[in-house]
Amino acid sequence: MRTIKLTIEYDGTNYCGWQIQPNGPTIQQAVETALSAITGETVQVVSSGRTDSGVHARGMVAHFQTLKNLPLTAFREGVNSKLPADIAVVEAEEVAAAFHARYSALAKKYRYSICLGQVRSPLSIRHAWQFNKALDIEAMRLASSSLVGKHDFAAFRSSGCDAKTTVREIYHIGIKKHGTMLHIDIIGSGFLRNMVRVITGTLVEIGTGSRSADEMENLLQSGDRDLTGVTAPPQGLSLIKVWYEGDQKAWISREKRCNSCQKSLDKVT
Amino acid sequence: MRTIKLTIEYDGTNYCGWQIQPNGPTIQQAVETALSAITGETVQVVSSGRTDSGVHARGMVAHFQTLKNLPLTAFREGVNSKLPADIAVVEAEEVAAAFHARYSALAKKYRYSICLGQVRSPLSIRHAWQFNKALDIEAMRLASSSLVGKHDFAAFRSSGCDAKTTVREIYHIGIKKHGTMLHIDIIGSGFLRNMVRVITGTLVEIGTGSRSADEMENLLQSGDRDLTGVTAPPQGLSLIKVWYEGDQKAWISREKRCNSCQKSLDKVT
Repeated sequence: MRTIKLTIEYDGTNYCGWQIQPNGPTIQQAVETALSAITGETVQVVSSGRTDSGVHARGMVAHFQTLKNLPLTAFREGVNSKLPADIAVVEAEEVAAAFHARYSALAKKYRYSICLGQVRSPLSIRHAWQFNKALDIEAMRLASSSLVGKHDFAAFRSSGCDAKTTVREIYHIGIKKHGTMLHIDIIGSGFLRNMVRVITGTLVEIGTGSRSADEMENLLQSGDRDLTGVTAPPQGLSLIKVWYEGDQKAWISREKRCNSCQKSLDKVT
Repeated sequence: MRTIKLTIEYDGTNYCGWQIQPNGPTIQQAVETALSAITGETVQVVSSGRTDSGVHARGMVAHFQTLKNLPLTAFREGVNSKLPADIAVVEAEEVAAAFHARYSALAKKYRYSICLGQVRSPLSIRHAWQFNKALDIEAMRLASSSLVGKHDFAAFRSSGCDAKTTVREIYHIGIKKHGTMLHIDIIGSGFLRNMVRVITGTLVEIGTGSRSADEMENLLQSGDRDLTGVTAPPQGLSLIKVWYEGDQKAWISREKRCNSCQKSLDKVT
C-alpha cells in the first residue's frame, strides 16, 4: 500500500467548501472523483483540514492510499486532466505510511485579503473582501501583536466549532499593503473554525477606529465570541501552506524579511 | 447637454469583449443598460477603444452625453447598483463637451500577465496565460527594447485589423517577475488590434529560445504578420490606463522607478 501526499490549489468560489456535502459540489468530491478515475480504485482523501464554502487554497495538503503502481505524474498531470479548471494538484509525492495530512501537520499559513476602495473592484471581487472605509494599519499591527504566542482562542471561533481544546499558537501575523490590497498573513500551529475570519473582522473594527488596539488583549482573555468582531466574508481567505516534518521551518525569519522589503515598497508606491 | 467621462473596471471572462455584438453579452451593452436605467434616457457610450472577448480592464475610459441634472454619484454608485458584479464604474467626472474618449486619448497602458509553472494555477487562470516552459527574461527585455519608439507595427496586428495607418509609438515596455507571475507592461500612443498579444507571443518565443532576441528588429521592419509569433490568449491581457490632456504624463519616469523597486524586490524573493 502506497501513501501519496497531494498539494492542491483551488478557487473555492463555485464550491461548498472542501468537505463532501449532500447539498452541493465540494473540492474533496472533485479530487476523489478524479483520483478514482485515474487509479480505478475508490479513493478517499484525508486533508489537513476543511475550508469553508467560498474559501480558496494555494497549498491545501491531502493524502490517500493506493495499491496501484502508477508513476507520480499520474497523480498530478493525470489527475489534473480529470479535474475542473478551478482545481489542480500542484505537487504529488510518495510519503511514509505514517504520514497523515491532518495529524502530521506542524503549522499552517493563511492569507486574508482586503481590497480597499470606495467602489467594488471586479478584478479582485472573487478573492478579496471589498472594504470602503479607511483602515489604520498601524493600529491593526499593534493589536495583532497581542495574538502572537500560545493562547486560548475561544473568543475567535465560530459558534459551530467543535474543537476539544481551544488553545493554539500563532507564530506570526504580518499585515502588508500592496496598492489597494491589504494582506493579513497568519502562521500558526493550527486554527479553530473561522478563527482567521474572526481575527480579521476584529482587526478591521480596530482599523476603522470603532475599537481601540489595546482591546485585543482583553478580548483574547475573555474567551467570549460575543465580544469579538464580525466574521470576515469567506472569499478573502486562502490557505497558503501547510508545514510537515522535514519542511524548512524558518517561516518567522522569512516573513520578517518580507516585511522589511514591504517597507521599502511602501515608500515608492 | 453634459458630457460625462467614466473609468470602468471589468473582468472580461464572461463577456464577448467591449463592443456590442449580436451573439453574446458585452461590457458596452451592460454599461449602456445600467446608464439608461439611471438616467431614463437611451444612453450610448463611446469608449477609448475595444477590448476583445475575455480581455479585462482596470481603467477603460468611455464617455456619454446626458440632459439629466443628476449628481456624479448617480453615475458611479447609482450605475454600479445596476451593473453585474464583474463590471464597475470606478470614477465618473463631468468633462468639457470637446472631450472624446477615443479621439482625445493620448496614451494607453496594457499589462499582459503570464503564470509560469508546470501545472495550471486555478487562482490565476482567469487573468493570466498559463505557461509551462522556462523563459529567458533578459532575452525578452533585450528584444522588447527594439520595439520602443515610433515604428510601423504592421507585423504585430491581427489579420482582421482595419486601422488606416499602422504607425504607433511605444513609450515604454517593462517586463517584471513577481513570484510565478511575469508581467509585460506596455505604454504606447495607441495600439493596433491584437498588437499587445502578438508582441507578447513573439517575446515568449524569444524567451523559450525558439527565436533569438535580435530577430525582433527584422520582424518589425518586415511588416509581415506571417513572420511574427503566436497571438497570446486573451485572458492574460488587461487595459490598465488611458491618458488624456491634463493627466500626469510622467509615465516613463514612474515606470523607471517601479523597475528599480522591482530589482530590490527580486533580491529578497
